Amino acid sequence: MRIDIALDAMGSDKSPEPEIRGAILAVLQLPVRVHLIGPESRLRKLLAQHMRRAKNRHLPIKIVHASEWISMEDKAASAVRAKRDSSMRVGLKMVREGRAAGFVTAGNTGAAMATAKMVLGTLPGVDRPALATILPTSAGSPSILLDVGANVDCKPQNLVQFAVMGAMYARHILKIDRPRIGLLSIGEEEGKGNDLTREAFPLLRQLPLNFIGNVEGRDIYNGHADVIVCDGFVGNVALKASEGLARLVRESLRESLSSTVSAQVGALLSRKAFNNFKKRLDYSEYGGAPLLGLRGVCIVGHGSSNDRAIMNGIRVAAEFAQTGVNTHLEHEFTLHPPVPHSPTAAEVEGDGL
Amino acid sequence: MRIDIALDAMGSDKSPEPEIRGAILAVLQLPVRVHLIGPESRLRKLLAQHMRRAKNRHLPIKIVHASEWISMEDKAASAVRAKRDSSMRVGLKMVREGRAAGFVTAGNTGAAMATAKMVLGTLPGVDRPALATILPTSAGSPSILLDVGANVDCKPQNLVQFAVMGAMYARHILKIDRPRIGLLSIGEEEGKGNDLTREAFPLLRQLPLNFIGNVEGRDIYNGHADVIVCDGFVGNVALKASEGLARLVRESLRESLSSTVSAQVGALLSRKAFNNFKKRLDYSEYGGAPLLGLRGVCIVGHGSSNDRAIMNGIRVAAEFAQTGVNTHLEHEFTLHPPVPHSPTAAEVEGDGL
Repeated sequence: MRIDIALDAMGSDKSPEPEIRGAILAVLQLPVRVHLIGPESRLRKLLAQHMRRAKNRHLPIKIVHASEWISMEDKAASAVRAKRDSSMRVGLKMVREGRAAGFVTAGNTGAAMATAKMVLGTLPGVDRPALATILPTSAGSPSILLDVGANVDCKPQNLVQFAVMGAMYARHILKIDRPRIGLLSIGEEEGKGNDLTREAFPLLRQLPLNFIGNVEGRDIYNGHADVIVCDGFVGNVALKASEGLARLVRESLRESLSSTVSAQVGALLSRKAFNNFKKRLDYSEYGGAPLLGLRGVCIVGHGSSNDRAIMNGIRVAAEFAQTGVNTHLEHEFTLHPPVPHSPTAAEVEGDGL
Repeated sequence: MRIDIALDAMGSDKSPEPEIRGAILAVLQLPVRVHLIGPESRLRKLLAQHMRRAKNRHLPIKIVHASEWISMEDKAASAVRAKRDSSMRVGLKMVREGRAAGFVTAGNTGAAMATAKMVLGTLPGVDRPALATILPTSAGSPSILLDVGANVDCKPQNLVQFAVMGAMYARHILKIDRPRIGLLSIGEEEGKGNDLTREAFPLLRQLPLNFIGNVEGRDIYNGHADVIVCDGFVGNVALKASEGLARLVRESLRESLSSTVSAQVGALLSRKAFNNFKKRLDYSEYGGAPLLGLRGVCIVGHGSSNDRAIMNGIRVAAEFAQTGVNTHLEHEFTLHPPVPHSPTAAEVEGDGL
């Protein structure tokens, strides 16, 4: 039984090429059927070319027509309203209607968030879904950082909800029994931080969670916490600064290595070391980040995703659908709502669809 | 002629040992005279031991008594008021009175900022001094990131002042003629970001500076901008996340290298590669970050500073004093005040000293 995954064919910076190649990689390696969402005739032509090249005309890839798509330049809120037949909306509707187990896009994060809220709706108790990313640590076990860009100018209650969602994610996907929750701040003592973290701190302490207090930027990579919560602006900057530094280190080490030893040994060594290093840090290996707190699976990848990243995004969506994290989250939020819930504008709007 | 530098002997996490050893390193290598500020009898005993060990009893190091010091746990605002004879206050007074050309501390950043504002005062047009750090980029030229932790919950005008100060720093210390100024945000388009960046963007565009618009976290390390301005909470998280990642990479590569080649070649290679890498990224090589916008030189180092980092902090202070960046900044702010200036509470308070 193949799992149906809807893939936004028009999301990435170089779309639809990485999406088509990524879909082919995915169906060859994973038990999935991919629904490519975008302009039908264009996709059909490109897909046929790629299938001929792959010498396989019978892959489980379907094309689903969408006449519009949202670009990185589009303003999220207005694009979501104006483009009623966008590839994101069509793909997310498939999830809502049970025709796909999950949706994957490498497109505009803000638009994905707004469309998913509108089409799928949020779980009870969740005001704003959060983009959660899994990062490697020197302790061996990964850490979860959220939000990494779906929500800016967060309120303390948003961070509280992120903590509950992150804990659930850690329990069900990373199999950590009692995940340690840290609040990303500048300085470990309770009073340190900005207005947001100082207000969120006492609220987090009241939750029935293993809250370990403030953590600092360096703790993202040392395994001191399993789940680290922050405003999406801060999380996004931290994530992208890390990507930038990882690239600098790769370039800088390649230079150092090639300048210090004979070319042959250096090349061998660096290839092996870099491949290992890449696996632990490269975005394409992680594939994409789930939007937590929605009534359905939505995975958002990097705009610069290549075919491998798209394939891994599809893998993450399939795993996510199978483990049923959303069902667990819904159950948890219904039993223990972290804060009194009032419907948000987007949810009210979502009802009218 | 040696330059007089006042050094907080009680700042770092393991003070006063790294400070004493760092002062000895500094006076042996640099044209400086170091004034060690802290509890006289304790410092005198330790300094004598270290000088005996260094077989040199006539180093240009003086001890200046301060009966109190501010710890990392102290709340900045109250500690500054309560501890009237703190090592920070005594050291900064030496700068104000012209007995030292600069002050160096590896202590509590918030307390250093508050004490420096009170004792030295800010330049005309500057509401809040900023902590500026220099980072390596893959383009070869370094980039300046500010603020990295002295100011949280910034107003748009603060970012505007940071841009003016950063540009001046780039011109006079990095010798960049027309530095490119970027606003740290999430997404490059003007509308992207949070409330703060959206409000700051049009103000920055109006300045007579080479403002290149929004930049993202990854741009900190790729050389797209010479100066990157941000709120201190965001800058601190970005900086510390980078430190954490750099440590993870070092550990991860060491493992990869030692597991893939014979111990001998691996050790040789990794030592050389790591040393090169360390020079480009290690905090101890940079020594400390200047607080820009003060009427005097104040360099703030990392709490975990070792003797090498302290020595480099002293070097930065001496360089800073010699190039006269503050004089240039004062001149610039007097000629082109970025925003109408009204005295802040701390300045009014500073007048009463």
